[in-house]
Amino acid sequence: MKIKVLRLGHRIFRDQRITTHCALVARAFGADEIIYTGEKDTETEKSMNDVTKRWGGNFKIKYEKNYKKILKNWKGIICHLTMYGKNIDKIKIPKKDLLIIVGGEKVPSEVYQLSDYNIAIGNQPHSEVAALAIFLDKIHKGKQLKRQFRNAKLKIIPQEKGKKLLDRNIES
Amino acid sequence: MKIKVLRLGHRIFRDQRITTHCALVARAFGADEIIYTGEKDTETEKSMNDVTKRWGGNFKIKYEKNYKKILKNWKGIICHLTMYGKNIDKIKIPKKDLLIIVGGEKVPSEVYQLSDYNIAIGNQPHSEVAALAIFLDKIHKGKQLKRQFRNAKLKIIPQEKGKKLLDRNIES
Repeated sequence: MKIKVLRLGHRIFRDQRITTHCALVARAFGADEIIYTGEKDTETEKSMNDVTKRWGGNFKIKYEKNYKKILKNWKGIICHLTMYGKNIDKIKIPKKDLLIIVGGEKVPSEVYQLSDYNIAIGNQPHSEVAALAIFLDKIHKGKQLKRQFRNAKLKIIPQEKGKKLLDRNIES
Repeated sequence: MKIKVLRLGHRIFRDQRITTHCALVARAFGADEIIYTGEKDTETEKSMNDVTKRWGGNFKIKYEKNYKKILKNWKGIICHLTMYGKNIDKIKIPKKDLLIIVGGEKVPSEVYQLSDYNIAIGNQPHSEVAALAIFLDKIHKGKQLKRQFRNAKLKIIPQEKGKKLLDRNIES
């Protein structure tokens, strides 16, 4: 099962950290790729690719100008995370390839129509970062948090107090 | 059971949106209050108080210069969310008042020592917004997403497609 995240309407000045957090969450919680629309942002791409290089796995970040093209070509299910949608508890999502849409400030009404499911992680205002994390956590039933990433140079050894980080660049 | 979130080291220019997302998540996922340290930020306080006024409930945002004072005066459990900690699945948290710490860029090593639990929402880099959401979701076993907020002026009626927002200011 392939999972991609589509982040709509990125604005470099205003959204850089939120989009980066969306990308980090996508990777850490088991998505394969994030695609973003809006303003092309090589800095965010570079910092995300650096994370993947150091922490492992094959996560990709891609820019696409035209979101409609992605929606029209997508062969699996499209889930749009929005506070206006049906609560996640009331939706049973088929086990197919997933495109998960997280919006920016203004989501075109067409996105609601073209999505198979408009899903609310609660109907209160909060955060696309949180919504994405909760959604992926439910999809993977929490198992993604134990996943090991291939070719990782950095690895944390969990501690009760303090920090322990294995760095394979230094070891070898 | 009282739940407060402590956001460390807020910087107005760099952290405004992330701190706001932390505050929104704290409110939507059932915390009573967020306290932040670092730079005093009346704009973030105002925007958060506006959300609570419109969407209901009694959520508070407070500034505190000295985080040590909060930790020392806290009578319940202190949970510090950090990628370096023990995985959340391996920790059983007593049902007492909770102070949940989410860090900024550099968390003083003392915080690791003074916390009862250093808890990782996975040991990969991602987001304090996501970590807070997942942690509160687990504490409340997902029930917080169905909570109704008192004195709400705005309320969403969940839809399969599109948006429906009840505005009690307009109704009355």
